[in-house]
Amino acid sequence: MDVRSVEVPIDRLRGDASRTGVDAVAVEEPLEIRVQLGAHAPGTRRTLSVTMRTPGGEREDAELAVGLLVSEGVVRGLDDVVDARRCGPDARPAPNTIRVTLAGSADLSTMSRRGVTTSACGVCGKTSLDALRPTPAWALPPDAPTLEPSVIHGLGATLRDAQEVFDRTGGLHAAALFDVGGALHCLREDVGRHNAVDKVVGAQLLAGRLPAHDRILFVSGRASFELVLKAVMAGIPVLAAVGAPSSLAVSLATESGLTLLGFVRDGRFNVYAGGRRLAGIGRQQTDRGAHAVEGSP
Amino acid sequence: MDVRSVEVPIDRLRGDASRTGVDAVAVEEPLEIRVQLGAHAPGTRRTLSVTMRTPGGEREDAELAVGLLVSEGVVRGLDDVVDARRCGPDARPAPNTIRVTLAGSADLSTMSRRGVTTSACGVCGKTSLDALRPTPAWALPPDAPTLEPSVIHGLGATLRDAQEVFDRTGGLHAAALFDVGGALHCLREDVGRHNAVDKVVGAQLLAGRLPAHDRILFVSGRASFELVLKAVMAGIPVLAAVGAPSSLAVSLATESGLTLLGFVRDGRFNVYAGGRRLAGIGRQQTDRGAHAVEGSP
Repeated sequence: MDVRSVEVPIDRLRGDASRTGVDAVAVEEPLEIRVQLGAHAPGTRRTLSVTMRTPGGEREDAELAVGLLVSEGVVRGLDDVVDARRCGPDARPAPNTIRVTLAGSADLSTMSRRGVTTSACGVCGKTSLDALRPTPAWALPPDAPTLEPSVIHGLGATLRDAQEVFDRTGGLHAAALFDVGGALHCLREDVGRHNAVDKVVGAQLLAGRLPAHDRILFVSGRASFELVLKAVMAGIPVLAAVGAPSSLAVSLATESGLTLLGFVRDGRFNVYAGGRRLAGIGRQQTDRGAHAVEGSP
Repeated sequence: MDVRSVEVPIDRLRGDASRTGVDAVAVEEPLEIRVQLGAHAPGTRRTLSVTMRTPGGEREDAELAVGLLVSEGVVRGLDDVVDARRCGPDARPAPNTIRVTLAGSADLSTMSRRGVTTSACGVCGKTSLDALRPTPAWALPPDAPTLEPSVIHGLGATLRDAQEVFDRTGGLHAAALFDVGGALHCLREDVGRHNAVDKVVGAQLLAGRLPAHDRILFVSGRASFELVLKAVMAGIPVLAAVGAPSSLAVSLATESGLTLLGFVRDGRFNVYAGGRRLAGIGRQQTDRGAHAVEGSP
């Protein structure tokens, strides 16, 4: 099993006084994600990306890779994945390489659409949302689930209790799936906040639990466009973040019918999109954002 | 001039009570970064990356693109850059596209080394630091500058005062360059913490101020491998972070001779590497990490 944290020697400074000690830091290691189409089609092998991540054994590396492929629109169901395992270039297990073997049903055409080093990205000359709008496999449910504010207020404490078990470093982002009663169903941690969400989404796909229409995705950091995209692509209708959302996160959430909550802490939160899922305040916000909110993505 | 924040309608929940209002959110928009070799060499044009960033006018987009090219080892001096300007595919200015024209001295060979969708990444089968170790244009000065702990303790307050002017959203990361007296010389903000550092580095290169051997780079978030790499490539000998470092950040800082400070807040900080630059505690840490710290990168 991989370790999530290692101890390093440090000096602690408080004012002018220093003392030596040790500190646990989160492990960050590169992971090469490879994909191939079918078990015997070497011509279609390629490296999808190299990402810096916190190792969590072969299982979490597989979750990360599969979750990323869900976000990219390549994987749209459990049937699209033949297997996902550690495998280096010489076909032996390698700790920093995961190979996803895809079935013929997977859609490889989307794979480099938003990636780096594409020769034509499609962003320039279009409005950004036109170019970046996702095409999810599953439409979000138009209204359900119905959220009680008290459940949202309680997410942070539940997450912190669960995180304490894992994270002694202060350096790991968390992503977690809750049900509408506030029970925690899946928690993943990583030095990269995108990776933590990819691990959660990949775990759901591999367990046959996508789309996750009755779940809340809660993240320990900010809500960017990319995180809203990942929730939409996984069919998760609610994204709650401890931090702030970006403008493009709000736009995509509104267009996609996703409920986006920010600054979820200290008994407060802000509703940036999809307020109709919240008990008590639903109607007014549905009216306000009706033109964009009601349609399927 | 681009706007950094926009107001969006929200519902604020405190307990069960909700009220409508508006909230300022940080603007996030995609930027396509294009590079070409020489003004009249269309065959060498390519898209380097598409990154989500907070717009800051043509100037900050140029800084971001050039700073990224410094991190990648493509640009190693002001002479490598002919110009950097907004330019869409039809050669007219486009707000979300920046084109960097490089001189023949620029090293394009490194450009896709660490990028996504490379066919062979070099990570698998090697230790990660072997594959990812940078080859900076400038060696860090072995000892200078000498840092007073009181200056480090003061960085956060100076940054917060300066940030208040710009950031009303709570959603922007900051990167700033200080001198060893604690004076702020350059501040950039972005929804992406890598982007904020790229903007700072690009601004220094375009002003002819790299390597920044007498500067401290202070970042509002965590210190990842990638941020240590950016400091090393820019010749900045000190990276101070409000948050935690990762294991690979500590390893790269130690190998590169960079001073890495974490949890810089509330009158305290931890020294993870390069303690010899700190007045008072230098000797003991030099001894401890001597095998890795003393050599040039």
